[in-house]
Amino acid sequence: MVRHVAIVGLGLIGGSIGLAIAEHLPGVVTSAYDADPAVRRRAAERGLVGTICETAPEAVRGADLVIFCVPVGAMGEAAREAAPGLSPEVIVSDVGGSKKAVSEALAKALPGHTIVPAHPVAGTEHCGPDAGFATLFQHRWCIVTPRAGADPKATASVVEFWRALGATVEVMDAEHHDLVLAVTSHIPHLIAYTIVGTASDLEQVTRSEVIKYSAGGFRDFTRIAASDPTMWRDVFLNNRDAVLEMLDRFLTDLAQMREAIEVGDGETMFDLFARTRAIRRGIIELGQDDARPDFGRADHNGDAINRSKR
Amino acid sequence: MVRHVAIVGLGLIGGSIGLAIAEHLPGVVTSAYDADPAVRRRAAERGLVGTICETAPEAVRGADLVIFCVPVGAMGEAAREAAPGLSPEVIVSDVGGSKKAVSEALAKALPGHTIVPAHPVAGTEHCGPDAGFATLFQHRWCIVTPRAGADPKATASVVEFWRALGATVEVMDAEHHDLVLAVTSHIPHLIAYTIVGTASDLEQVTRSEVIKYSAGGFRDFTRIAASDPTMWRDVFLNNRDAVLEMLDRFLTDLAQMREAIEVGDGETMFDLFARTRAIRRGIIELGQDDARPDFGRADHNGDAINRSKR
Repeated sequence: MVRHVAIVGLGLIGGSIGLAIAEHLPGVVTSAYDADPAVRRRAAERGLVGTICETAPEAVRGADLVIFCVPVGAMGEAAREAAPGLSPEVIVSDVGGSKKAVSEALAKALPGHTIVPAHPVAGTEHCGPDAGFATLFQHRWCIVTPRAGADPKATASVVEFWRALGATVEVMDAEHHDLVLAVTSHIPHLIAYTIVGTASDLEQVTRSEVIKYSAGGFRDFTRIAASDPTMWRDVFLNNRDAVLEMLDRFLTDLAQMREAIEVGDGETMFDLFARTRAIRRGIIELGQDDARPDFGRADHNGDAINRSKR
Repeated sequence: MVRHVAIVGLGLIGGSIGLAIAEHLPGVVTSAYDADPAVRRRAAERGLVGTICETAPEAVRGADLVIFCVPVGAMGEAAREAAPGLSPEVIVSDVGGSKKAVSEALAKALPGHTIVPAHPVAGTEHCGPDAGFATLFQHRWCIVTPRAGADPKATASVVEFWRALGATVEVMDAEHHDLVLAVTSHIPHLIAYTIVGTASDLEQVTRSEVIKYSAGGFRDFTRIAASDPTMWRDVFLNNRDAVLEMLDRFLTDLAQMREAIEVGDGETMFDLFARTRAIRRGIIELGQDDARPDFGRADHNGDAINRSKR
């Protein structure tokens, strides 16, 4: 069982891991490093982990689990920086949103080390050392993607760790993870970023009109289009093939709907619009979303809106 | 001032109007008709309006404001059906999500009558006589699109009516409304329906995987992709030109992002991802959404999820 966890990178995910360990695994020692001195200071003020160190090797020294919580494109460099402090028995893991590229980057940076990549499928549109909270992983999935030939004991330790933080863990290979996440996360983010960009560039419709009338559907896209730009750039740079495959399927389907609109083919539209409800029901039943209208954004008496204004 | 309002169509919007009148305009008489006998029965049980009638002409008789709350494609027929009961002084209005086509359909069905179309920009993904609630229009916009040469007094009555129900009213011409709503509502719905359809048709990724990992972004699209299929088919059939114009702009922008991913152009991605945050901030500041992570979907202690399961 893990006794000392080191966290490299103290943003939303790294900070939440620190707080979740304090709550669920109070006997486990935590140490951490972040490349940004301002983040280290703020993390110390919030008490995100037990010890904040001034260098990466210092932070990982003596840890039996090291978790890299930096943008996907920075994993290799962060691992190389920490390498001198790693003990030979350490399990190296991460929280990146694409797994094949990250797994390869970590293996290249840390030859001979045990690497068990993982991806907690949880987050908010907020980032930085103030964004984390202890229950971020509760009732959320965490996907563990062991490398070919990985030590089953190391995989079991990572699985057990995430279960202790409240996550439901699934094990799959990195390629499959990347396809699944391309459709459930990466393409939705790309589409959301793009439509919000399109809307803000229009000449005929002002930005203030877009904002005013956003309750008609547009605002559902804006939450994920406010996610961390560096993290998402890196995801697209590091999951290119799966993203392009899924994007091209979406573009084919959207071209069909465009054609249906152009020729006035109401039947094709109705067929699509009627069958997409089943997926929504599945998500609600699985407890991955809230069935209340507007997800409780605005309680019927306006409470939530009022709360957010305070 | 309006004394008797007749509602034709008792779904989410029609029912909410009835309940909102009872709460905010208790002196106003309400009568209503719905073509579906089961809806009429359920509306009577819930007390959505004062009187439920068995025919449309009966329901509109004596009313000084008649509001058609049927799908956009059914407006003309509903108006023709109700016509024999309309008094000459009545103001005819509606709640359709596209305004140019509806305005023309109502004018054609009811020659000589005063027509002041309106569109309350409010709704949930639920529909039918059980979906309505009195506060649906509170702090939401309602767009009134008077026809050229319309009597300013009639427009003022409709504006005053919607203000009384809690909405903030804007007046604009129907063409501009249709462009604004194409980008803030119709295109988001089309995209959401399409991506949910794409995801449910994949061979490599199962539907149950899509549902499980939906918290990564996908679920934000599923709420609006669960909206009423008939209503949305009619919107796309009746706002074709504006929807195609906005869709083609989105497709151009998305093709650029596809290219950036293909060639690994991180700078283009970062630029887009960084500037889309401003719109989100505007929406939160205007009180049109909730700044809490997940819009309060899951309170940090898991309350919202638990509530929805009960």
